[in-house]
This record gives sequence, C-alpha cells and structure tokens, in this order.
Amino acid sequence: MIMNKYVTEFIGTMFLILVVGVAAIGGAAGSMAPLAIGSMLMVMIYAGGHISGAHYNPAVTLAVLVRGKINMGDAITYWIAQIGGALAAWAIATFIFDIEGADTSAVKSVGQGLIAELLGTFALAYVVLNSSTAKGTNGNSFYGLAIGFTLTACVFTFGGFSGGAFNPAVAIGACLMKGFVWADLWIYLVGCLAGGSLAGFVFNLINPEDKNKS
Amino acid sequence: MIMNKYVTEFIGTMFLILVVGVAAIGGAAGSMAPLAIGSMLMVMIYAGGHISGAHYNPAVTLAVLVRGKINMGDAITYWIAQIGGALAAWAIATFIFDIEGADTSAVKSVGQGLIAELLGTFALAYVVLNSSTAKGTNGNSFYGLAIGFTLTACVFTFGGFSGGAFNPAVAIGACLMKGFVWADLWIYLVGCLAGGSLAGFVFNLINPEDKNKS
Amino acid sequence: MIMNKYVTEFIGTMFLILVVGVAAIGGAAGSMAPLAIGSMLMVMIYAGGHISGAHYNPAVTLAVLVRGKINMGDAITYWIAQIGGALAAWAIATFIFDIEGADTSAVKSVGQGLIAELLGTFALAYVVLNSSTAKGTNGNSFYGLAIGFTLTACVFTFGGFSGGAFNPAVAIGACLMKGFVWADLWIYLVGCLAGGSLAGFVFNLINPEDKNKS
Amino acid sequence: MIMNKYVTEFIGTMFLILVVGVAAIGGAAGSMAPLAIGSMLMVMIYAGGHISGAHYNPAVTLAVLVRGKINMGDAITYWIAQIGGALAAWAIATFIFDIEGADTSAVKSVGQGLIAELLGTFALAYVVLNSSTAKGTNGNSFYGLAIGFTLTACVFTFGGFSGGAFNPAVAIGACLMKGFVWADLWIYLVGCLAGGSLAGFVFNLINPEDKNKS
Repeated sequence: MIMNKYVTEFIGTMFLILVVGVAAIGGAAGSMAPLAIGSMLMVMIYAGGHISGAHYNPAVTLAVLVRGKINMGDAITYWIAQIGGALAAWAIATFIFDIEGADTSAVKSVGQGLIAELLGTFALAYVVLNSSTAKGTNGNSFYGLAIGFTLTACVFTFGGFSGGAFNPAVAIGACLMKGFVWADLWIYLVGCLAGGSLAGFVFNLINPEDKNKS
Repeated sequence: MIMNKYVTEFIGTMFLILVVGVAAIGGAAGSMAPLAIGSMLMVMIYAGGHISGAHYNPAVTLAVLVRGKINMGDAITYWIAQIGGALAAWAIATFIFDIEGADTSAVKSVGQGLIAELLGTFALAYVVLNSSTAKGTNGNSFYGLAIGFTLTACVFTFGGFSGGAFNPAVAIGACLMKGFVWADLWIYLVGCLAGGSLAGFVFNLINPEDKNKS
Repeated sequence: MIMNKYVTEFIGTMFLILVVGVAAIGGAAGSMAPLAIGSMLMVMIYAGGHISGAHYNPAVTLAVLVRGKINMGDAITYWIAQIGGALAAWAIATFIFDIEGADTSAVKSVGQGLIAELLGTFALAYVVLNSSTAKGTNGNSFYGLAIGFTLTACVFTFGGFSGGAFNPAVAIGACLMKGFVWADLWIYLVGCLAGGSLAGFVFNLINPEDKNKS
Repeated sequence: MIMNKYVTEFIGTMFLILVVGVAAIGGAAGSMAPLAIGSMLMVMIYAGGHISGAHYNPAVTLAVLVRGKINMGDAITYWIAQIGGALAAWAIATFIFDIEGADTSAVKSVGQGLIAELLGTFALAYVVLNSSTAKGTNGNSFYGLAIGFTLTACVFTFGGFSGGAFNPAVAIGACLMKGFVWADLWIYLVGCLAGGSLAGFVFNLINPEDKNKS
C-alpha cells in the first residue's frame, strides 16, 4: 500500500523537477516556464491524487502533517520518495539532456529570498489544504488546477527574488543542476518549511470543523 | 465564525494585490501579468470559497449585497478585511520587495477609464453571481476558473485604458505602490461600484427564481 | 423567460466581441489575444449556460438547431440578440475606446479563408454539442473550458488564414470595426454556417442515442 | 457502434495534428504553439471522451491495451482511425494551407530523442490512465484538462530534444509535412510505444484494485 504511494510521489516529484530543470534552468520554455512548471504540477496531482494525495513537495507534506491528515511514519516515507524524485530528475536532466545551470545564486537578497519562499510556499500549502483536504470542498474537480496555478502565479511573481522553488525537493534538485547554489539551500529549507507549517496552522484556525479529522 | 471569513478575505485579497504589485507594477511577469493576476484570483477563490465566498473585492461584495446573499453587517466587515489585505500587500511589496511604480496615471482618459472599470467590474461580478450564487450552477467545480479568467481577459482587454483594477481594494493598493495615482482613485471607486451594482441588478433580472433567496 | 435568454445572449456576445475588438483588432493583448478571446468566451459560457445555453454565436445556434435542441422561433431570437451584441460591442469599441482596424482583408485567399472558417466553426460547434448537450457528458463542469479553449486553439492555428472569427456575429462586429472588410463577409457566413451545420449532422451520426432528444 | 468510435478518433486526431502542422510546423502560434496543441488535445478529449475514450494517440491506445481496458480488435481499429486522421491533417495542411516544414531532423541526438519521447509519452499515458480509467478518479471533470496540459508541459520541456510528438500518429503526420524526417520515424515509434507500455505496467502496479477491471 505505502509502496504505491511512494512510487506515485517519486514519479510526480521527478517530472515536476525535470520541468524545472529542462524548461526553466535549461531555458527551453523561455518566459513561459512558470506555465510549464505549474501545468506539470497540475497534471501529476490529477494523476496521483487518488493514490498518495499528490504532495510532491516536503513542505506540503509538513503542512498536511500539521493539519493532521498524515502520520509521521508516512510523512518520512514521502520525504524520502520526494528527495528520490529530485535525484532522478537531476540524473536525467544532467546526464541525458546536458542541463547545467550558471552556478550562481538565484536569490536577490537573503531577506527577500526568505520572504518570497515563505509567501509562495504558504500560498501553495494553503491552497492544497483547502482545496483537497477540507470538508467544504469535498469531491471537487478543481484541486489540481488550483494547486498547479498557484505555483504558476507564484513563480511569475516571486521567482525573481528567490528563484521560485517553494519546495525543498525542487531546491535540492536545482542545486544539483547548478540552477541554485548550495550556500542558499538553508534559505529554501527555512522559508519553505516555515511557509508550509504556517499554512497548516492557519488552515486549522479557519476550518475549525475540519481540525484533526482525517 | 465571521473571524474565519475575515481572515480568508484578508489572505486572498493580500495575495491578489501582491501579484498586482510585484508581477504587474514591478514588472516581474512582463506581458504575462494578466495571466499571473487571474491565476492568483482563481486559486484564492478555490481555497477560500467554502469559508467566505471568496470575494476579495469590495465591488463584488456590493454585487452580492444587491443580489441579497450577504447582509450589510457582514459586507462592512468584508470591506474592512479587503482594505486590510491591500495595506498588507502594499507593506510587503514596498518594504520587502522594493516595488515602486512610476507614480503616473494609468488612466488614458477619464471617460475611457470609467467605462473600462465599469465594464470589467460588471463582467467580474456578473460571472461571480452566476457561477457561484445561482441555483442553476449549484455544485459546480468551475467557479474559480470562470472568475479568475474573467479578470485575465479583462486586464488583457481594458488594462491599457484604466490600468485594469476592476476592484477598489486593488486600486487602493496600486495607489499606495505608486502604480496608480491618488487623483484617479475616484474613477476606480465610481467605475467599480457602478459595475458591481449593475451586475447585481442584471443578475436579479435574468435569474428571477434566485432573487433574494439565500 | 425568453427575455432572460435574450439578455444573456446579448451580454455574452457583446463581451466576446469587445475582446475581439479591443484586444485583437486594437492590439491590446498582442500575441496573447487568442488566450484573451477564448477566456472571455469560456467565462461568459460559465456565467450564462444555465440561462440560455450560452451560444453567443449564430453558427452554434444553427448547430443546436440541426441537432434538435432549440426550436426555430427561439433560434431567430438568439440570432437577433447575438447581432445586437455585435452592434453594442462595435459602438463601445469605436466610440469609447477609439478602436479602428486597418480596413484591409484578414483573409489570405478565398479558399483558405473558407476552409479555415469551416474547420474552426466545425470544431467549436462539435465541442459545444458534445460537451454541453450529450447525455454522455451530462452534469460536467468542463463545458466552458472546452468551448473557450477550442476558440483559443483555433485562433492560434487558423487566424492567419481567415482572421479567425468562426462566428458570424464576430465577423459582423469585426467588419464594423474595420478589422475585417465587408467584401469578405460572405466567406464568414458561408464558412461558419457550413461548419456549424456539419457539426450538427456529425453529432447526430456519432451520438445516435441523443438524436432529437431535448 | 465501433463506427462512432472510429469517426471520433479520426476527427480528434485530425484536429490535433492540424494544430501541430499549422500552428507549430507552420509557425502560426510562435512560442505559444505548445499551448495551442495542448488546448486542442484537451477540447477534443472533452468532446469525444464519452464516445471513444478519446485516445487520439496509438501509444495511448497501447497503454490502455496493456492496462486491460480495450481489446485487441478495437485497438487495431483505433490505430487505423488515428493514422487516417494523420493523413487527413497532412492533406489539409499541405494542399489547403501550404504548410511545408524545413525537412530537417527535429531530433537533437538519438539518445536524447528516444528518452524525450519515452518520458513525454509515459507522462501522457500515465495521466490518461489515472485520470480517465481509475476507480479513484471516477466521474471527474478534469481528465481533459489534465491530459491536454500534460502535452503542453511536455512540448515546452522536451520539444527541443525530439520535436515533441509523444504520439506515433503525430510523428507520421509531421514526417508527411516535412516537420520531421522519415529517417527519425523509428525513434518516435520506439520511444512512444515504450513510454505507453511502461505507463500501462506502472498503472497496474500502483492501482492494484483497478487491474484488468473494465
């Protein structure tokens, strides 16, 4: 059972980070990269949501943990699968498609980078929790569209300040591909995990009837 | 209860105006700014619709008031939350991301600006009322897509004549960020509130069975 | 009853043709005009579908007539409302927003123009009939997205050969705005009405169980 | 019965490949070609899904065969209809719209082309199977959006390495239009059919309860 979820998280995260690597870092999609990235997240959510919940993002898994819809054991397995997806995307992008970033920082300043990652990850996790785990939106067909286009809007908006990861697995993949630099990794980890946790707390605050129901 | 709605309106309006500020006034999204703005409105509607109805726009709240689906007390609270979101977006855009507009008018002429804002706000509120408050579209999954892409289409079309706010809170936020000028604020208030009221009246006219049912 | 439908057809067609006029003929949306036009069609369908069926296009009304889901009296009323929307859009675009086309033909050659309009209108009416009048897709939330993005894809593809109307009311509006020339109007009428009729016949052929059920 | 499915597969594949020919090979949609192509796939899926399942792609039909939701006889009929659609699209693009590609290879290197086609076709078929044949996503309204935008994201990402067919019928159509060269056809056949088969096996692995249920 958990194996199916693991495979689903691995596949979805790998494709998401492949698009980040080839279309954005490699430049294939030009100014439309945010649309390509958000579209891939959307479609992988629609493909995998019924199996694993389709997180594809350690910060989203953390938000779902804070909200009380996943247990710690599964969360750790999800994080391993997501990092595994990042490694696979890196290997394919680097050794098959010859992608190599400029090896320069994508962060404009530490403060701007931290806030950009926090805001974007908060938006992403807030939309995830409300559109795919709340009683009030149960059974809808829009959750993938909502989550994917949150990423599109946030990359268009905040990408110039932090590189626009909003996802620690994406940040690790982008460091491996030299689109981001390792010295900045802590910014993504702190910003994304703070944004995801905050979204979990805010969700519980404004959806009192859903709290800790799974 | 109303606190949850207030927080939801505050968050959604803040993110919408942050995208307007950073992606459009700050230029981050270039010619794709209308897509980024409409996408953020769409996703915040899908995230908050089940809590507050997801207006994020004082003119939409006015339209819902005319249509008879919100009472005056709640409407006033919504307006305060929406203006609060504009202030928060301004503070973040200005003090964190160093956004500052050219401080020149975005209005081509008073007449064109007024009609552009009236038409765009009418379209927005007309789509809101029909897609999210009518019996005939009850339980659909498309309301966020419909409303968000109304904004995208209207900014692409009317943006060059009025700046493309269609939302008094956006207009206030844009004035604070110097993307619009304060001397034009009345154009946005008059155009948007007239467009929103008109949409409420037209909705009641063409949906006689829904009238004043809540 | 029919008055509500008439008003809905008038409003939807007017906004669609306003976007064609201002965003495409006037150039406001640049290379993104097909996205703006398709988005406006999508949102007006989601807003008006439950009232009038949201045709906004005489060729679609003809297709629905061939398919047997509207009677001749209502169809004639729809056509009048749609032409009325074209006139209103022309008046607003011309006298408020100073839109004036180059008054040159948008048709590359008569044969290409006819086939382009026939193919695009067939696609549009085929998607309308299957996504919003077939038993097999009953109750879906995607009909507006499907129809709007058919227009987007067809304008991107066939626009360079015929101007990309796929709609006699759009063609009349564009002639009035001098984006098309009157001498070409017959091409749009013949191409669009042939495409719409053909779609009605093909729908009846491949959906035998739906035939003439209303 | 099968005739209706055949006509539906023919129409959908023809329009998909017409967009590839005119908008991409002919250059009509410029950098937005991936959006036009994915949109046409999306809308033809929404129009034909209830009749034929809306494959429009021999590799998707193979994936559905591996997954056990179509029998060999129908699959062969689908393949014939899809190739027929490619021939029709070629005839229209070439003889009506004067489309002629540069007759140079769209493949950057054999290895990159094979992997690009395999990955893109895997993603496409994986999304098809999960969003339109799994019990866990039954009755949803998002399948066309999910599948169409998988193609959009993959053309943006992998198009520069293989031309971005992900579909043997598209590859044949593009060879006929001289957008691809016949010497590369085996790359598309091997890459696409491998990707489609792999998706069928992975689907069965991670959806054990759906396996071989039709």
